[in-house]
Amino acid sequence: MNENDITVNLAPGSKIDLVDFENLTFGNVFTDHMLICDYKNGVWEKPVIKPYEPFLIDPSAKVFHYGQAIFEGMKAYKDENDDVWLFRPDQNYERFNKSATRLAMPEVPEEVFIGGLKKLVEIEKAWVKKGKGNSLYIRPFMIATGPGVLAAPAVFYRFMIILSPAKSYYSGEVKVLIAEHFSRAANGGIGAAKAAGNYSAQFYPTKLANEQGYQQVIWTDDATHTKLEEAGTMNVFFRINDTLYTAPTSERILDGVTRKSLIEVAKREGINVEVRPVLVSELIEAAENGTLQEVFGAGTAAVVNPIVGFSYKEKYYELPKQENSVALFLKEKLNNIQYKLAEDTFGWTVKI
Amino acid sequence: MNENDITVNLAPGSKIDLVDFENLTFGNVFTDHMLICDYKNGVWEKPVIKPYEPFLIDPSAKVFHYGQAIFEGMKAYKDENDDVWLFRPDQNYERFNKSATRLAMPEVPEEVFIGGLKKLVEIEKAWVKKGKGNSLYIRPFMIATGPGVLAAPAVFYRFMIILSPAKSYYSGEVKVLIAEHFSRAANGGIGAAKAAGNYSAQFYPTKLANEQGYQQVIWTDDATHTKLEEAGTMNVFFRINDTLYTAPTSERILDGVTRKSLIEVAKREGINVEVRPVLVSELIEAAENGTLQEVFGAGTAAVVNPIVGFSYKEKYYELPKQENSVALFLKEKLNNIQYKLAEDTFGWTVKI
Ligand SMILES: Cc1ncc(COP(=O)(O)O)c(C=O)c1O
Ligand SMILES: Cc1ncc(COP(=O)(O)O)c(C=O)c1O
Repeated sequence: MNENDITVNLAPGSKIDLVDFENLTFGNVFTDHMLICDYKNGVWEKPVIKPYEPFLIDPSAKVFHYGQAIFEGMKAYKDENDDVWLFRPDQNYERFNKSATRLAMPEVPEEVFIGGLKKLVEIEKAWVKKGKGNSLYIRPFMIATGPGVLAAPAVFYRFMIILSPAKSYYSGEVKVLIAEHFSRAANGGIGAAKAAGNYSAQFYPTKLANEQGYQQVIWTDDATHTKLEEAGTMNVFFRINDTLYTAPTSERILDGVTRKSLIEVAKREGINVEVRPVLVSELIEAAENGTLQEVFGAGTAAVVNPIVGFSYKEKYYELPKQENSVALFLKEKLNNIQYKLAEDTFGWTVKI
Repeated sequence: MNENDITVNLAPGSKIDLVDFENLTFGNVFTDHMLICDYKNGVWEKPVIKPYEPFLIDPSAKVFHYGQAIFEGMKAYKDENDDVWLFRPDQNYERFNKSATRLAMPEVPEEVFIGGLKKLVEIEKAWVKKGKGNSLYIRPFMIATGPGVLAAPAVFYRFMIILSPAKSYYSGEVKVLIAEHFSRAANGGIGAAKAAGNYSAQFYPTKLANEQGYQQVIWTDDATHTKLEEAGTMNVFFRINDTLYTAPTSERILDGVTRKSLIEVAKREGINVEVRPVLVSELIEAAENGTLQEVFGAGTAAVVNPIVGFSYKEKYYELPKQENSVALFLKEKLNNIQYKLAEDTFGWTVKI
């Protein structure tokens, strides 16, 4: 497919001048256009780029009843020469189709996913602002539009891409709660898929955590609640005695692009990294004997999110202030690659 | 709220004459009208009954991205006097609001859920056909319509009810696979909620089972895969040595209305019922020593679904043919209550 295989209906005007790019709240302003590609009778139709607007859907569409819905989250960055770059889009594409398979949805062709998002981002180039911290958040997603309330996979699907300008902002001091009862994923479940249903499962326990003053929950394995897994939309790293630990990905844990990129950057920088299950008891012990240095989340939205303290079994553990935060060091290194301020020795960046 | 608090916009005509009531496929024909009730700024608006049709929704609606979607499934039955009856609607209403809480969605008021569905079914009375096996399937559901791709609960929701005429049909001989690896629910997860995301999780493993010749999967606990839990849309009962066994409901298992009604009917009929965890090993042992008599699913769609055999660790176990099937006996008893052919000693039926 070349770009002529995408139908483009441009909006008559742009709403960009109405947007205050200095004061963006994550994910609630969208650009002028969206991409839609429908799947019918076993075939993906021609993608269409058209003005962003509500669309019609049947009340019995399976996405509403049986949750066949998956998504991806990635970003476009503008460099000093006004070129726009994607970061490892192949990883998101691969993960998207893995999610699709796990939810019995059709795989999306590369020309539609990658080709479609390149074309859409190119059209919306003006929405990608220069300067570190600015980016265009890209949300590809697929929903089951096929009708019928029989509990079985749908026959029709819709793939879409929407874009939202983003600004990295100071999210305040993040305190987390270690989950003792609630869980986000089952063994043999869909935790490793970026499936919509995994997120709504977390809202209620997260709300309870918020009420106690914690912004996020770090999930533990549902069977024993002894292993540290990941946060709501971030993988987690623990720095103990100058080694970085993070759980291996599994059926229960999302294979985060940021996580795996940070592991490679850390290794290149000579930082010790161990990928192995991390026990809650190890974390507590390290916190108590003073070897715990840092805990941070890793995900596309903030790259790295340092955590200032955590609570477990009603006890709060404050993390020491770091003069030389490895979290921030790694964030800087990765951001420099993303914004083309440092050489991309890994070949991760892709020009639009 | 009395019924004047529902706005009613009737369809200009009915499509009922186009429907072949003798040859209905479950869940793909809908009646002429639907009910919609929107939740905005913390308040439920006035419900509207209007022609069944697609509706407009924003591409960033949280139902598509974070899976805030719950539903219920219940039926209306017509008796010999053309009166239409609901079966334990209070149970579905209660369960719906429990699901809502677990997914951080607002509870729906009784006047909207019960009042709304009574009014809607009354309008669609002609779609409820007389005669055992005929019914009108009722699907109340709620989705997050609030926009934005931040992973947090939505601010706007939509509650809807759609109706689909149903006929009980012979579903063929049902063989099931006992899950050894895949799971539908986590400890501390949302398995007990009728959440959309729970169903899409089952489609892929069920597809694999189908390919091996099994129509359904009986899920086991995700931590050990040693306890028999439930099927895709049915709770399960095992009859061993003239005692009926079924797992207790839990965070992982849906509290089925059919299950609990069958337990009460069985007890009234002097049948031994034990509600306790049932191990896979017990089932295998009973199958091998000849004490296993019946296995059946219990749910609104078919009331009771007898299972003819199951497979576990590549071995197939055929169930003995029953002259006096307790499954079919209980189905008859429950159906008679639902269709008003026997006295409703429990007070379960509610007239529209
Ligand atoms: C559950 C979960 N874990 C981890 C991540 C981090 O993944 P990535 O680095 O690919 O954004 C995400 C994505 O946002 C997520 O949703
Ligand atoms: C997962 C699951 N288990 C059991 C049941 C049976 O519940 P009920 O008897 O209330 O229909 C259902 C509902 O259809 C279900 O979805």
